[in-house]
Amino acid sequence: MGILVVGSVAFDAIQTPFGKVDRCIGGSATYFSVAASYFGDVSIVAVVGDDFGDEEASVFKGRRINLDGLQRIAGEKTFFWSGEYGFDLNVAKTRDTQLNAFANFQPRLNEQQRQTDVLFLANIHPELQLDVLHQCKRPRLVALDTMNLWIDIKRAELERVMREVDLVIINEAEVRQFMNDSNLVKAARGILALGPKTIVIKRGEYGVLMITSEAVFAAPAYPLETVFDPTGAGDTFAGGFLGYLASRPELHPHEFRRAVVFGSVLASFTVEKFSLDRLREITLNDVQERYAAFRALTHFEDFEV
Amino acid sequence: MGILVVGSVAFDAIQTPFGKVDRCIGGSATYFSVAASYFGDVSIVAVVGDDFGDEEASVFKGRRINLDGLQRIAGEKTFFWSGEYGFDLNVAKTRDTQLNAFANFQPRLNEQQRQTDVLFLANIHPELQLDVLHQCKRPRLVALDTMNLWIDIKRAELERVMREVDLVIINEAEVRQFMNDSNLVKAARGILALGPKTIVIKRGEYGVLMITSEAVFAAPAYPLETVFDPTGAGDTFAGGFLGYLASRPELHPHEFRRAVVFGSVLASFTVEKFSLDRLREITLNDVQERYAAFRALTHFEDFEV
Repeated sequence: MGILVVGSVAFDAIQTPFGKVDRCIGGSATYFSVAASYFGDVSIVAVVGDDFGDEEASVFKGRRINLDGLQRIAGEKTFFWSGEYGFDLNVAKTRDTQLNAFANFQPRLNEQQRQTDVLFLANIHPELQLDVLHQCKRPRLVALDTMNLWIDIKRAELERVMREVDLVIINEAEVRQFMNDSNLVKAARGILALGPKTIVIKRGEYGVLMITSEAVFAAPAYPLETVFDPTGAGDTFAGGFLGYLASRPELHPHEFRRAVVFGSVLASFTVEKFSLDRLREITLNDVQERYAAFRALTHFEDFEV
Repeated sequence: MGILVVGSVAFDAIQTPFGKVDRCIGGSATYFSVAASYFGDVSIVAVVGDDFGDEEASVFKGRRINLDGLQRIAGEKTFFWSGEYGFDLNVAKTRDTQLNAFANFQPRLNEQQRQTDVLFLANIHPELQLDVLHQCKRPRLVALDTMNLWIDIKRAELERVMREVDLVIINEAEVRQFMNDSNLVKAARGILALGPKTIVIKRGEYGVLMITSEAVFAAPAYPLETVFDPTGAGDTFAGGFLGYLASRPELHPHEFRRAVVFGSVLASFTVEKFSLDRLREITLNDVQERYAAFRALTHFEDFEV
């Protein structure tokens, strides 16, 4: 039954200190689905314009990605985002956002989509997230992402969705903003108190912190000598994370930890090139090798003083 | 033969969002030596004024800290630093620095001090660091710390010391500044190319990255619900790190990894209260328990997809 993701399929224009690209494929659902497809079946629910043709859709081709839920609206253009990264690559400065086809996006799931096992509500309007969630039957696992904009202007709606999900996957700055607390652990506990059993905090080049009521797990980001373009790293992480979990029969805590590492592995590839260029060319063997490299990166031995 | 540290013993005035203190004990050599003394013998080489009396010196009492090298200058005041932390606690804003007795500090090591096994050159003028280093016979391990000021105004001198040490223990921002490269891994390799075999990069609440020509090791900071005052965390880390290493007969790579974790453990206590208040009250058992907690924080299992 696999994973369903609702989010954006987009065109991006990106400038980094290492180069620029005027139009490449992006969007949360795109990065998410390609990453998750390394582990199993993914269905996309998203909308594009008629400028997103077969050539663009080839990004999904040859993968376990179902496009029945990808609407193409005649006479509309595809969602467009333009952003720029400075010296430290940690923060994107948005130059332009054009919603286009996305402006009137009202996802309607078909019967098969409603049966999804795992649901990822990527960063879209919280009311849309809730609407999609309510269309699903009984997913085993529901996760959401969000952004500062929704915390600013749709806080009550966002809180309502949070109360109904199992997992929140969110940036560090957004955790602090949402709870108005600079202490990340305390802020995370505030979000857990709303209902989610797990919060996964994305910290960019500093890795990931996963917090439950029982335990905290910290994973670094993979240290790379080439970080070319961080766009899509967060959605790739979510795709690897949930993709791995969806492939497991039982969701034990140690599976969540492995999932964090698989998410980090996939994200570490994404940032090595523009768009999905690197993510598309890797093999499952590359993924496994970098998973082993993560073990070597973080392992240390026990000791009694 | 233990460790020798040359650095500052100071008074600090500190303001954080959680409180303020007008005069407390601080200084790099102070934090370093108390942390290192959990593992073995430490000798301090530093200078204070006659306002640093027996009561203040009691911070070192009952520990394996030798004060033969702590000069007390009559008619002088002790080095004073005043700083302030904002909402995110990551960056201290210096309000005032008064060198006082430190202004004419010219350390002269005695015969026993020259025989030190491990030498830590805390953040002082690079020329002083080099002078102390050259007074020592043949330490097994030499490490230095530094700061943005010396990178700005004494770059050549700093580079000269770097060429003669085994280990550089330095903040993330300083690595980037020194090499003028935003990519931390590349910048670190630039520093290794000067001669040091190991660079240990302190990233505050994001933990530590240790890089050699062979491997990279990443350790998170211990996630705390109470971070009260970050002052001294870096020097405490260095103390725990080198203190542990000095206690080991052989310096294998896996010992360096454990040392990073012990340094992180000690630093995680320091930030829980003002000054050395927390660091002074813990026991070796507390240290061991938190070491075990670090294992639980970072452990994940192998997996074949």
